[in-house]
Amino acid sequence: MRNPQLNKHGELQHLLTLDGLPREIVTTILDTATPFAAVAEREVKKLPLMRGKSVFNLFFENSTRTRTTFEIAAKRLSADVVNLNINTSSAAKGESLLDTVDNLCAMHADMFVVRHAASGAPMLIAQHLQHTGRDDVRVINAGDGRHAHPTQGLLDMYTIRHFKHDFTNLTVAIVGDVLHSRVARSQIAALTTLGVPEVRVIGPRTLLPTEVEKLGVRVFHDMSEGLKGVDVVMMLRLQNERMNGALLPTPQEYYKIWGLTADKLTLAKPDAIVMHPGPMNRGVEIDSAVADGTQAVILPQVTFGIAVRMAVMSMLGSH
Amino acid sequence: MRNPQLNKHGELQHLLTLDGLPREIVTTILDTATPFAAVAEREVKKLPLMRGKSVFNLFFENSTRTRTTFEIAAKRLSADVVNLNINTSSAAKGESLLDTVDNLCAMHADMFVVRHAASGAPMLIAQHLQHTGRDDVRVINAGDGRHAHPTQGLLDMYTIRHFKHDFTNLTVAIVGDVLHSRVARSQIAALTTLGVPEVRVIGPRTLLPTEVEKLGVRVFHDMSEGLKGVDVVMMLRLQNERMNGALLPTPQEYYKIWGLTADKLTLAKPDAIVMHPGPMNRGVEIDSAVADGTQAVILPQVTFGIAVRMAVMSMLGSH
Amino acid sequence: MRNPQLNKHGELQHLLTLDGLPREIVTTILDTATPFAAVAEREVKKLPLMRGKSVFNLFFENSTRTRTTFEIAAKRLSADVVNLNINTSSAAKGESLLDTVDNLCAMHADMFVVRHAASGAPMLIAQHLQHTGRDDVRVINAGDGRHAHPTQGLLDMYTIRHFKHDFTNLTVAIVGDVLHSRVARSQIAALTTLGVPEVRVIGPRTLLPTEVEKLGVRVFHDMSEGLKGVDVVMMLRLQNERMNGALLPTPQEYYKIWGLTADKLTLAKPDAIVMHPGPMNRGVEIDSAVADGTQAVILPQVTFGIAVRMAVMSMLGSH
Repeated sequence: MRNPQLNKHGELQHLLTLDGLPREIVTTILDTATPFAAVAEREVKKLPLMRGKSVFNLFFENSTRTRTTFEIAAKRLSADVVNLNINTSSAAKGESLLDTVDNLCAMHADMFVVRHAASGAPMLIAQHLQHTGRDDVRVINAGDGRHAHPTQGLLDMYTIRHFKHDFTNLTVAIVGDVLHSRVARSQIAALTTLGVPEVRVIGPRTLLPTEVEKLGVRVFHDMSEGLKGVDVVMMLRLQNERMNGALLPTPQEYYKIWGLTADKLTLAKPDAIVMHPGPMNRGVEIDSAVADGTQAVILPQVTFGIAVRMAVMSMLGSH
Repeated sequence: MRNPQLNKHGELQHLLTLDGLPREIVTTILDTATPFAAVAEREVKKLPLMRGKSVFNLFFENSTRTRTTFEIAAKRLSADVVNLNINTSSAAKGESLLDTVDNLCAMHADMFVVRHAASGAPMLIAQHLQHTGRDDVRVINAGDGRHAHPTQGLLDMYTIRHFKHDFTNLTVAIVGDVLHSRVARSQIAALTTLGVPEVRVIGPRTLLPTEVEKLGVRVFHDMSEGLKGVDVVMMLRLQNERMNGALLPTPQEYYKIWGLTADKLTLAKPDAIVMHPGPMNRGVEIDSAVADGTQAVILPQVTFGIAVRMAVMSMLGSH
Repeated sequence: MRNPQLNKHGELQHLLTLDGLPREIVTTILDTATPFAAVAEREVKKLPLMRGKSVFNLFFENSTRTRTTFEIAAKRLSADVVNLNINTSSAAKGESLLDTVDNLCAMHADMFVVRHAASGAPMLIAQHLQHTGRDDVRVINAGDGRHAHPTQGLLDMYTIRHFKHDFTNLTVAIVGDVLHSRVARSQIAALTTLGVPEVRVIGPRTLLPTEVEKLGVRVFHDMSEGLKGVDVVMMLRLQNERMNGALLPTPQEYYKIWGLTADKLTLAKPDAIVMHPGPMNRGVEIDSAVADGTQAVILPQVTFGIAVRMAVMSMLGSH
């Protein structure tokens, strides 16, 4: 079966993963986001691109933070937004995922923003829409299990491009709990696609996937070595809540070895930027002196995130 | 006291129940819904009929699904919608139902969409509004206890009229857990009002109300007999969550006897339609082959539901 | 450090507390609210004063009732409103209050309406905004711990002015659980500021703060004495949910001594008005005969509350 992410003309139909997404499409999204940054910056207040469209935030996993970014983006495009937190209602009544989707389609949903604890749920929805001939309904993956979080990956790329201009001469380090991170998977896919020559992954063996080298990255189990000479440091959140029963370091132990301090950061290039997808565990994976320091671009990431989500939504939804 | 559902001119003031609602009013609602179906179908995106009106979704019982249908309908009429889930806040603080209503009226609510576990709660609110002279505030019952779910009944009637055109030559079977179903009560009332000559109720004795024949229906305790020659099969959801401590069949046992399979459906007329109010328990009251089959009109029910709710809201609220 | 509530020109920058707020500003808010009452009364449906602005209801403590009043006010000013209930999501993930604020600012929030169980949280946010140079983002305190609830205090002043016209010849009694009441603190501050010559506080020693006389009020531990000749009776809610482990009277005992009955109310002036911030415990601090009686102005308080919140929001947010 065809990957439902692209239509038969090779155009973006849904945004499910950055894995395998052609470079031109990634670049088009970043280019499209640029003028939206003006709206995100509030120079322009609202755009009518999705007036009358119904966007459903379909959150099977609670995330006020991510839901808010999509809600803001949709409202600034003048869409009607309906929030559904499914863990607490229909799911209790036992309705299946696809029955829920069918029902919302029957109410003439235009777009689903899907968050789900199970990897592949947004893909399943997109395939179902394809099977049932509903090409006008679009899906955006807002994070599925350990799989992907493509808008996060895209906003990270937008941020890197904004501060570093060119991807093809960069060394980028992704630091921490890659194993449980859907963000890391999306970042690695996008960095590779955009031609970053060296992507490093830094972390303890217990928090890196076993097959991680196959993703085309250089693996470091030593923080100092890994940070040497990098242009971009992408910190990951320690996903305590996803680690069930593992033999874990305490936050203090983790911080000592893997926490990004001002000291360790001096190993990177002097103009290196520091990124974090949020929410931060200050004093665990990142020290406050770094998080609030001059090299951090963590808040610009959030701002660009609105612009990137507006870009994706308008590309998919303003037909 | 006068039934507050109709005003002194016999016009619809609130929508509380289909029981006793005159046929002309039911027909007017269905007629009014027809042009709204165009909006529901998204040929027209939004209508300004309730611009600036405040609709409160007052849900004392959680139902994301039903709340969503009313929220969508109200937003497509350009109303401002405020969702209140009351189980978690004011109720914990002990404010009474009518004090909550008084407060929202003081904020100049225009319409309440009320869902409550207690039968009669929407009626109580309507009577209170009448007593206190607030004729401009309207109430729509979105499901109260085992009593009524009138917009569901109306969308069912709209669906039957759409596919069967005329009510006066139909045989309609309602199958399953009538005892716990507010939907069934609304359906029986509406079918009778619209002149359906034979309404059948099919189910085990334990899941039919003792006085069910008094509603003017034919009762069948045998699925095959009951389905014979019917034009419309209206399945009910097995309300597991409403059955406290009863001696219940397991879902497998229930399915074997009362589940609608393709086999059993052949007993109905060849052009019979199959309806379900959702959410479906697939493999319990209905087999997937039927739910997704050519005779099922379950998703059109959802679509028509938006149109019917827009019709009711605009009839009540655009004064 | 300068109080961040006022900017360097002495204009209102945030609304955090009525304590120390100059009389001219209080009066300006009340004057500004007057035309908004026409919108609240629905003579005018909506005003475009905050079109395109993003208002975040940042509720770290659940309060459907208060959140609704701000949501309604913001929507009638045409703002986009995003509701965040933080107890259930980011807070569980451990993000700090100020990181949440930074993130929402990065999404270009225009206004925060903050409810928090901790006294001082809105002030902390306002100071943080001042430190970080974000003068265009405004904060409204929607109730913080036992500290303040300034919009409640303002709507109370609006109500008194509406019914009594002049503050300078009034005797006002505040009755009940002052100890746990942020409302009482805001009321006392505002009444004093507006020149009410005699503010009385009536309640049992166990429910009055030890330093209460220092607030410039006359203290009464006897209900009959305290009510004698007053123009305004402001009842407080018995905050059962805030009293942890204290030696408390039962609701019945409380009612007998401190509940406002029609009998006790005869001790006040014949044209005295009765106020309550809601939600009422009927039969505890107030008898239904009084709550629903001709002297009660409890529902007008709610209506004026929308107008006052529109006034504050537009003063802060329509720049």
